[in-house]
Amino acid sequence: MPKKIRAAILGASGYTGAELIRLLARHPHVEIILITADRKAGQPIETVFPHLTGLGLPDLMAIADVEWPGLELDVIFCALPHATSQKIIKGILHETGHGFIDEMIIERAEDYANAIKGSVKVIDLSADFRLRDSEVYTRWYGEYHQAVELQKEAVYGLSEYYRDDIAKARLVACPGCYPTAALLALLPLLKDNKINRDGIIIDAKSGVSGAGRATTEANLFTEVSEGMHPYAIATHRHSPEIEQELSCAAGEDMMVTFTPHLVPMNRGELETIYVSLRAGETVADLRASLNDAYHDETFVHVVAENVVPATRHVRGSNQCLIGVYADRVPGRAILVVAIDNLIKGSSGQAIQNMNIMFGFRESLSLEQAPLFP
Amino acid sequence: MPKKIRAAILGASGYTGAELIRLLARHPHVEIILITADRKAGQPIETVFPHLTGLGLPDLMAIADVEWPGLELDVIFCALPHATSQKIIKGILHETGHGFIDEMIIERAEDYANAIKGSVKVIDLSADFRLRDSEVYTRWYGEYHQAVELQKEAVYGLSEYYRDDIAKARLVACPGCYPTAALLALLPLLKDNKINRDGIIIDAKSGVSGAGRATTEANLFTEVSEGMHPYAIATHRHSPEIEQELSCAAGEDMMVTFTPHLVPMNRGELETIYVSLRAGETVADLRASLNDAYHDETFVHVVAENVVPATRHVRGSNQCLIGVYADRVPGRAILVVAIDNLIKGSSGQAIQNMNIMFGFRESLSLEQAPLFP
Amino acid sequence: MPKKIRAAILGASGYTGAELIRLLARHPHVEIILITADRKAGQPIETVFPHLTGLGLPDLMAIADVEWPGLELDVIFCALPHATSQKIIKGILHETGHGFIDEMIIERAEDYANAIKGSVKVIDLSADFRLRDSEVYTRWYGEYHQAVELQKEAVYGLSEYYRDDIAKARLVACPGCYPTAALLALLPLLKDNKINRDGIIIDAKSGVSGAGRATTEANLFTEVSEGMHPYAIATHRHSPEIEQELSCAAGEDMMVTFTPHLVPMNRGELETIYVSLRAGETVADLRASLNDAYHDETFVHVVAENVVPATRHVRGSNQCLIGVYADRVPGRAILVVAIDNLIKGSSGQAIQNMNIMFGFRESLSLEQAPLFP
Amino acid sequence: MPKKIRAAILGASGYTGAELIRLLARHPHVEIILITADRKAGQPIETVFPHLTGLGLPDLMAIADVEWPGLELDVIFCALPHATSQKIIKGILHETGHGFIDEMIIERAEDYANAIKGSVKVIDLSADFRLRDSEVYTRWYGEYHQAVELQKEAVYGLSEYYRDDIAKARLVACPGCYPTAALLALLPLLKDNKINRDGIIIDAKSGVSGAGRATTEANLFTEVSEGMHPYAIATHRHSPEIEQELSCAAGEDMMVTFTPHLVPMNRGELETIYVSLRAGETVADLRASLNDAYHDETFVHVVAENVVPATRHVRGSNQCLIGVYADRVPGRAILVVAIDNLIKGSSGQAIQNMNIMFGFRESLSLEQAPLFP
Repeated sequence: MPKKIRAAILGASGYTGAELIRLLARHPHVEIILITADRKAGQPIETVFPHLTGLGLPDLMAIADVEWPGLELDVIFCALPHATSQKIIKGILHETGHGFIDEMIIERAEDYANAIKGSVKVIDLSADFRLRDSEVYTRWYGEYHQAVELQKEAVYGLSEYYRDDIAKARLVACPGCYPTAALLALLPLLKDNKINRDGIIIDAKSGVSGAGRATTEANLFTEVSEGMHPYAIATHRHSPEIEQELSCAAGEDMMVTFTPHLVPMNRGELETIYVSLRAGETVADLRASLNDAYHDETFVHVVAENVVPATRHVRGSNQCLIGVYADRVPGRAILVVAIDNLIKGSSGQAIQNMNIMFGFRESLSLEQAPLFP
Repeated sequence: MPKKIRAAILGASGYTGAELIRLLARHPHVEIILITADRKAGQPIETVFPHLTGLGLPDLMAIADVEWPGLELDVIFCALPHATSQKIIKGILHETGHGFIDEMIIERAEDYANAIKGSVKVIDLSADFRLRDSEVYTRWYGEYHQAVELQKEAVYGLSEYYRDDIAKARLVACPGCYPTAALLALLPLLKDNKINRDGIIIDAKSGVSGAGRATTEANLFTEVSEGMHPYAIATHRHSPEIEQELSCAAGEDMMVTFTPHLVPMNRGELETIYVSLRAGETVADLRASLNDAYHDETFVHVVAENVVPATRHVRGSNQCLIGVYADRVPGRAILVVAIDNLIKGSSGQAIQNMNIMFGFRESLSLEQAPLFP
Repeated sequence: MPKKIRAAILGASGYTGAELIRLLARHPHVEIILITADRKAGQPIETVFPHLTGLGLPDLMAIADVEWPGLELDVIFCALPHATSQKIIKGILHETGHGFIDEMIIERAEDYANAIKGSVKVIDLSADFRLRDSEVYTRWYGEYHQAVELQKEAVYGLSEYYRDDIAKARLVACPGCYPTAALLALLPLLKDNKINRDGIIIDAKSGVSGAGRATTEANLFTEVSEGMHPYAIATHRHSPEIEQELSCAAGEDMMVTFTPHLVPMNRGELETIYVSLRAGETVADLRASLNDAYHDETFVHVVAENVVPATRHVRGSNQCLIGVYADRVPGRAILVVAIDNLIKGSSGQAIQNMNIMFGFRESLSLEQAPLFP
Repeated sequence: MPKKIRAAILGASGYTGAELIRLLARHPHVEIILITADRKAGQPIETVFPHLTGLGLPDLMAIADVEWPGLELDVIFCALPHATSQKIIKGILHETGHGFIDEMIIERAEDYANAIKGSVKVIDLSADFRLRDSEVYTRWYGEYHQAVELQKEAVYGLSEYYRDDIAKARLVACPGCYPTAALLALLPLLKDNKINRDGIIIDAKSGVSGAGRATTEANLFTEVSEGMHPYAIATHRHSPEIEQELSCAAGEDMMVTFTPHLVPMNRGELETIYVSLRAGETVADLRASLNDAYHDETFVHVVAENVVPATRHVRGSNQCLIGVYADRVPGRAILVVAIDNLIKGSSGQAIQNMNIMFGFRESLSLEQAPLFP
């Protein structure tokens, strides 16, 4: 058995942090050395997440209190809010140049630098390093990016598409949950030139854990259960991320229509995607393109014609199911994608990327079958 | 107080039957004389629906055991399965000509005829009389229509659009739940020539009561909760119904893309509809068109720009909320419609039609505000 | 039609406030003149509760901004937090003597006094006036009561038991949701001396709306759905309220075991109550005692032996269902009670009390059958 | 790596069967050779349970079609309905004597005998072999037991209590879900003589998966969600099973009050247990007794005083959490137990027993942390 790598999870009191812990706790080659949560500092993880009892973890710390030297971390998972994430990661990766404004971080930069031995790898689950263009970032997030160089360096962590880059990366930006599902369905079809670039419509539905653990009225049980609604119509920040990757695959700038909905379930994300076929293409061609793309993949599966993906078929797993169907309207097709937003849509894909970065088998600690019912 | 009209509900053991009872029980001008349910015949309604206790209703009967003469019914609500519905209604309306194959019904036709005094009105909640074209019916329902003449006579019961015809009708075919929502959003825009006829996409989400009370594995709590999925992709029988009415409004044949999804909630239906604007039109024009259509309506409301319809805002009521929003993609707009599938999508609209047919105030017994949370 | 009474609802942005509005909006003899919500002051009710759109209500005000003179209120519903409630009500009822500490209220006392014309009636939904003994109040609520005289004057608003006193009361304290269910089941049995006073165990289960609309992590959808747990074991503040009324009925001091549980549903409260029979008594005797108590009641029903109350049978209604069953253990019986916590457990009973106080038919605006499914 | 044992799962189309597959599929020492489901015979498991796709399992067979010779099974999990289970197991274990009435089984007995090599071990998840007294079985199940000798031989599979016997057993009868939770809480207290034997009340709440996958109206989403109710009051078949084991621990015949409730969640079981302390005992003594019993256990944990077990803390895991609290009523205590009914309450405990029977580490394939949210 090789020596275990030493991992930190920053922002461990949110749902993605909890999922990282849950999955990594059984990883044969990983030891969790550090977990942080500023507002819960000093508490054992089991008071924050009782389901994570008995895993032998250290107590939660505030990031500012971490004594980085001596930790000898190999990998840091950053499950912090956007904007915060970029500052912390900049500090960690010793990028203390212009534009770095957080004094606390500047002062600590030497600590970080010592801690990381020049070789720590960072896997970021926030939105901070997903967009390559800092102007696009500013337009959608309303503030200037604080780590522009890292933004350029970061590798977009859609595991099935950037495997080689991920393997060599120092900083991986894990995709948003909605982009993960949309891109896995659409990228092969654009690369293979099977569908038209305009008029793509992504109608997305997500469970409530996608909204995190923040205490807002809108996410109370009484406000969510027994009902549903769309939100962020034409304004959701995952739109530019989807378009960045689709444009890259298509070789030209693309826009898509994207509407997310909140559904009364804890986990799960379903996207129903409406496309038009290029002249001469059939739904069978689309299916073939998808099968070609994924027949060797562990986690992405194209379902049979008579099967329809459901979120409950992937709940609690890193699986992604894709179906493709002919529409009644000639020349149109419908794609259906299902993932667990907290796993393939977030923490699971982050671990998949870690496995790639450290040369482990890609499915390690991600093999559990879905939990149903 | 005028004399109450005498009402029968055929098929009272399903959810739409229960809603008819619940709502009619408080109607000041209606007396429920007869409720039927073949498999529950002889039982009081409270053993079938304990929430309907204490309403002073007669016990459930089998349709075949009804002694029609003497009932002196004024209105019959028919909440039976499709195919059954057409046979029963044909018998009731004394249409015993060719193609009428159910011997039981033929034999009973005289009874029916006596019962109805030549003036009974029938409000059908099934799909049997929604399609005007019997060939279309046969294509989608896989069997010949048994009451072709009545199919032609029946008025499509979308209350806000066929009010005058409904007022004079002997037989009203209440719209399906999905068509109700789709048509209320789209009809004004097509009539006013605001949107293009092609490329309309209706992504629909429904609560589980839409599937009725039949005991299928797919509708078990454990199979539905904590998950969602689309169903009947490109094959749902509400498609031709939507297209019939849209084509009528547009003045030309139209096809739409329609995908329903099952959502883990009891009630509620949400449709997210993607349209493209005709040249020169803006989203403000669409909003104006909708406002023009509905500003005098009791039950259909166009929400403000900064409001998004949610099913929980209409739960338990006959309300329909419509929102219209600009997409980021130029020339495209997004409509959102919310109804309670069992009320405006079914039993409530049926009662609204009854009120129209008998000259009552249209909102009688339908005025209760939504139940939230 | 008699002149409508003029009503105010203080604290209209919570769920009990919303239910008061929903139900009163259809009351033939009530006009809602004033609705307050300090944190939402200036907003129309439909931005706070979109399901309450179109009811013609005034905008929300802050209590401090109310111009009481001229309102000519007949009744004030007070749906405020405990402790706040007693201060406001003391001001309203012009009790400005010793112990009244809120300067704002003192200053406004004259306004209140003018407003109320010496005759306004107050219906309080908080816990402030339920306990008659101010020492008990202090022990359980951790602070001194600010309106001790009113505490003595207030009538406990369990409609079926204090009808005569309620009719004459100036101030009615509506029971808590848990006490309402427990007392309706137990009071007849204690009064008729059918069960032993010791060893009574009340295992209570409530929907999440009982926790109100406050944004706490514990009430997030993700923290509540797909799970359940007890809370406030042996420490819930409804215990002394239950014991006060049981002791009163029994003629001696009683204690009960009471454990509430949080269940993933919006509404509904179920109590399973374990009792031992007095020597010589049978379950049939218990049933007879309950039937005697309630056979003339509109809202409390003893179900048949082969029927089990479920919360969904009363959802959205003011009904209370009670079942009583023999245990296998000799000499023991099990009671089951179901109510809608927001209606019979709160706002519905408040309106029932208002109807009693003003001589209206007791069921006015409370007659809607339960909403199922 | 030792040779894998060869396992069969009879009745693989129910939820307990699915859980056996899900968990065993990752067991390092088990190979699933055979899965049966009479009504789904010939289908791959992924058409019955899409979440179990890609596990490399054989297609489902009908039991009657199994060619037992050559299977060389080491262990058979029997997840069949009661009554059926006893006949099949009797055939498998070659007990073809008097009272064995199923001709099909008699004829196949030789096949079974060959298949099992005299050494196959059977783990039964039905109720058939839990009760040691065949008269008690007949009284509660309404029919004579068909395998009385096996009933005597079977070991009650409450892993933590019958470990030594399980290790040597040929036939293990896994406890019901309700008894598992009740016994884990109560057995130490009775063995240590901390609580009185009479007046114990078990108020149990279960998720819907406890009712299996049978298509009954009562288990439809629309009939279960947004509500709750008790069922089988004083008549549930788990009562004699609980009493058998409690009586055994107490050394005298005991009866308990037991009331199960159905809660709108997929998984999870919570029991709130009311006990009275023996003279001189305190809640601290109860806690000490429980801690003594379980401090070395992998799956049973006594929570701290300020923690309350919730079903969501054990969802998807084999964990059992027990809390004990002082009541306000002197001399009384309240126990709270939480398990996942499908895992520790069924399939997980079955695998735990298999691990014991075959000398594997007891937690193998059961170590996954709970899934939350």
